[in-house]
Amino acid sequence: MTSKEKPIPVLEIFGPTVQGEGLVIGQKTMFVRTAGCDYSCSWCDSSFTWDGSAKNEIKQLSAQMIWDELKILGGNTFEHVTISGGNPALLKNIGYLVNLLHDQGIRVGLETQGSRWQEWMADIDDLTISPKPPSSGMITDWEKLDEVMENLKNSSNEICIKVVVFDEDDLQYAVQAHKRYPHIRLVLQVGNSDVTTLDREGLAFALLEKYEWLINQVMASSDLRQVKVLPQLHTLLWGNKRGV
Amino acid sequence: MTSKEKPIPVLEIFGPTVQGEGLVIGQKTMFVRTAGCDYSCSWCDSSFTWDGSAKNEIKQLSAQMIWDELKILGGNTFEHVTISGGNPALLKNIGYLVNLLHDQGIRVGLETQGSRWQEWMADIDDLTISPKPPSSGMITDWEKLDEVMENLKNSSNEICIKVVVFDEDDLQYAVQAHKRYPHIRLVLQVGNSDVTTLDREGLAFALLEKYEWLINQVMASSDLRQVKVLPQLHTLLWGNKRGV
Ligand code: SF4
Ligand code: SF4
Repeated sequence: MTSKEKPIPVLEIFGPTVQGEGLVIGQKTMFVRTAGCDYSCSWCDSSFTWDGSAKNEIKQLSAQMIWDELKILGGNTFEHVTISGGNPALLKNIGYLVNLLHDQGIRVGLETQGSRWQEWMADIDDLTISPKPPSSGMITDWEKLDEVMENLKNSSNEICIKVVVFDEDDLQYAVQAHKRYPHIRLVLQVGNSDVTTLDREGLAFALLEKYEWLINQVMASSDLRQVKVLPQLHTLLWGNKRGV
Repeated sequence: MTSKEKPIPVLEIFGPTVQGEGLVIGQKTMFVRTAGCDYSCSWCDSSFTWDGSAKNEIKQLSAQMIWDELKILGGNTFEHVTISGGNPALLKNIGYLVNLLHDQGIRVGLETQGSRWQEWMADIDDLTISPKPPSSGMITDWEKLDEVMENLKNSSNEICIKVVVFDEDDLQYAVQAHKRYPHIRLVLQVGNSDVTTLDREGLAFALLEKYEWLINQVMASSDLRQVKVLPQLHTLLWGNKRGV
């Protein structure tokens, strides 16, 4: 760690596994999950990153220490790392990690709700911006999101907007987001409304049923034409298990 | 139909629905399924396109007639059409359809095993080349596939190689394909070994189990680093039902 490099608060490093969501769905990747979020979505499936319940598990790590841990876990089997949270865009120092990963020939993915901008976001290869619909209980700051999108305008990232949809209101919100950013690829994802159940099979079928509902809604819509509709693969596979 | 325009043998036109496979997984799209194939894969899930069982359903349609049918079915709800088969690359006249769709502002996807080249393939927006592994019973003509790939070198298509994997041999075949075309994105897809069962739930669970097997194999492999591993979404949702 150089003197000016502040550590990154990390809650989980795991993989390789498949990315279960978004445009990069199915991608073989390692995950680095940072601590802390400026939101508190009602259905957050990573609330341990911000509700204090896992605060004793947070490690303060330098970019190099994160890389060392990734290599211990993944050896030579990976070329993609996803930075997730919480909201990693709260952390200025992720920039050191992104540079280090790029130096090692690794593609980097990021998941954030788009409530903050960091310079290093322009260097992310696979960028998923997931503004939160009404069912989350959060209010989107559209001007802030405009600013993030404007900053990304000239980047060569693969960018998508991902909206998790639980109900009709969420779907209307997705339409609104799509109209505001018509040139950004849109991914709609069916929401998991039971983030604690251990009944894996029951959960998988509930999700497939809701997925079919979402597909039916979107297929009938002339507002949503250029769009992908996806389930969460990891939830279909592993239910609510952490670290897979 | 202009005098030089020969009709296209079409077996199904349906949608809008979600693309269940490949890099375009989840994409809202219409499907045009052509008749005829130069292969006869042991596990073909569209064997009615070539085994004679649906030969009375084949319609000889011009590009314009196909477009009219797409509009009747999909109205203003779609901007993406997937041409599937059978092997549409047997048909020179698909070129008329691709041009007409582009004129209408539609993105065009194609699925083919890569055994034939047609000029119009360079114009396809989302191109899935799916060479068939040993379990199919087919033998890949690698020189022919090299030629197809060479012809696509300067196109701005989104191209991927998709290999359906049933067993270890198939996985080795995928590694071989990946080494031969290292710069083309690779998608591995778990195979559906029961293309007739009507037990939708049983099939979904069998597929999720095989998907987990495939994930485990690929995650441990240092030959397969930059790769996506996916299930067939439509089979998880609708089992072996046709036309969804
Ligand atoms: S933005 Fe993401 S991590 Fe933060 S509370 Fe919402 S779902 Fe959870
Ligand atoms: S190439 Fe495709 S359509 Fe032709 S036999 Fe094989 S699986 Fe069926």
